[in-house]
Amino acid sequence: MTGQSRRIVRITDPDDERVAEFRHIRERDLVRRDGRFIAEGTVVLRMLAQSDRFLAEKILLLEGRVEGVADVIEAFDPEIPVLVCNRETIDAIAGFPMHRGVLAVGKARRNEPFGEAIAGLPPHALVLVCHAISNHDNLGGLFRNAAAFGVDLVCLDAECCDPLYRKSIRVSVGSALTVPFARGGGVDDIAAQLSDAGFGLIALSPDGERPIGEVDTGPRTALLVGTEGQGLPYNLLEKLGRVRIPQAKDLDSLNVATAAGIALYCVATGQKRFT
Amino acid sequence: MTGQSRRIVRITDPDDERVAEFRHIRERDLVRRDGRFIAEGTVVLRMLAQSDRFLAEKILLLEGRVEGVADVIEAFDPEIPVLVCNRETIDAIAGFPMHRGVLAVGKARRNEPFGEAIAGLPPHALVLVCHAISNHDNLGGLFRNAAAFGVDLVCLDAECCDPLYRKSIRVSVGSALTVPFARGGGVDDIAAQLSDAGFGLIALSPDGERPIGEVDTGPRTALLVGTEGQGLPYNLLEKLGRVRIPQAKDLDSLNVATAAGIALYCVATGQKRFT
Repeated sequence: MTGQSRRIVRITDPDDERVAEFRHIRERDLVRRDGRFIAEGTVVLRMLAQSDRFLAEKILLLEGRVEGVADVIEAFDPEIPVLVCNRETIDAIAGFPMHRGVLAVGKARRNEPFGEAIAGLPPHALVLVCHAISNHDNLGGLFRNAAAFGVDLVCLDAECCDPLYRKSIRVSVGSALTVPFARGGGVDDIAAQLSDAGFGLIALSPDGERPIGEVDTGPRTALLVGTEGQGLPYNLLEKLGRVRIPQAKDLDSLNVATAAGIALYCVATGQKRFT
Repeated sequence: MTGQSRRIVRITDPDDERVAEFRHIRERDLVRRDGRFIAEGTVVLRMLAQSDRFLAEKILLLEGRVEGVADVIEAFDPEIPVLVCNRETIDAIAGFPMHRGVLAVGKARRNEPFGEAIAGLPPHALVLVCHAISNHDNLGGLFRNAAAFGVDLVCLDAECCDPLYRKSIRVSVGSALTVPFARGGGVDDIAAQLSDAGFGLIALSPDGERPIGEVDTGPRTALLVGTEGQGLPYNLLEKLGRVRIPQAKDLDSLNVATAAGIALYCVATGQKRFT
């Protein structure tokens, strides 16, 4: 690893101020990190290295992991500090056994306003709109599926949780760092803006009238999903019409990320995005 | 709740032998429970009450939960003991804060041999074959999706983990207790038995030649999925041919439960199971 030694800083004291952002990770997960987020694990670190939307501010590695992630580290700006410590120190910093031993603090390169994100979409586009997703696992799963089907933009309404929460990023397998997303206000307003931009809107609901397989998908299509339990707001469903995934009756419906995965598959197939 | 008082036993000592099966739940999760399992939460308890494959041996409730689950309790055999205790006692029994406060020990009514399970399938049938699924969340998700698309039988090979593990049942939202499953030996042998029984076999693989939307689905169809990472064995894929879900290249593939959900949707639609 040519020239890398200069960037590696050995940390021996868990109270070292240079690792302050990594301290008591779980407790700090519960508060906003001022636009910053924690990326963990080699796969996510690799996605962060490749992201043109986010950058790393610093990296913390367990000493045994340095060699294994050498190629990933090479992909980051050489100015970014790489802090290395032993098992005891990293566990004391994180506040729990940090098995992965690969952590980074990241932040967005810039904040794109919602209107700009919509305006910048290509003529053929697939958008996923999420309403009030409050479970970080589900939001991570939604991003993973959005990545698989080439979603151009994930629109989050004001009631959605943070896709940059540590667990969301992990469940998304880093896709929260690569699939573009923008946060709008109310889901009605988001739907109206997409409609004005020429998007056909598909509102998913377990009690939908039309099966998803029979819905026409134009070159610009937006799929709307709501939180498990309540789903999308009644007024919006009335206005757009409900689309369902045909399935067994009288059951707890599919997990919202799985339902979105099936619907995205149908729309992506209809748009002939992948063959 | 007429006549229920006779079945309610108040527990005040965490060391009471009558709650032995509920003691240190997490530690005991790690060992086989001799055919028994722990069901937790109201939704899962309701599924257990409705199951014709499993029965409850005893039920443990936090005192504040008794009224809320009264109708579910009524559905169980009146001989089944219902043990009730306060917050401090239930936490001491479980070994961690047992927020749900609704637990049961269940077991299978009978053990159906694998061959009988296959022989008992209807003329129109959808079977899901799972190879080496080692993650309990994924197996739970597979059962949830199997339930949604009316799967008649889940075949588990010898390398699959236990769908009756506490977390699998929870993630399945109780479907592990309602969707019939049977454990066979090797996945090759399972595939051969299904083929002999007239099933068309669809082997899912990220590098599949044929897109799932173009696969013909006969009245008897079995979908085969393998563990994330390795997938299905090479020999089996060579023999059966690979079927893929069209998606973005160069990505970590879809989660196995989500991929199965999409494929089951396609097969169920092809079979016209739900409209």
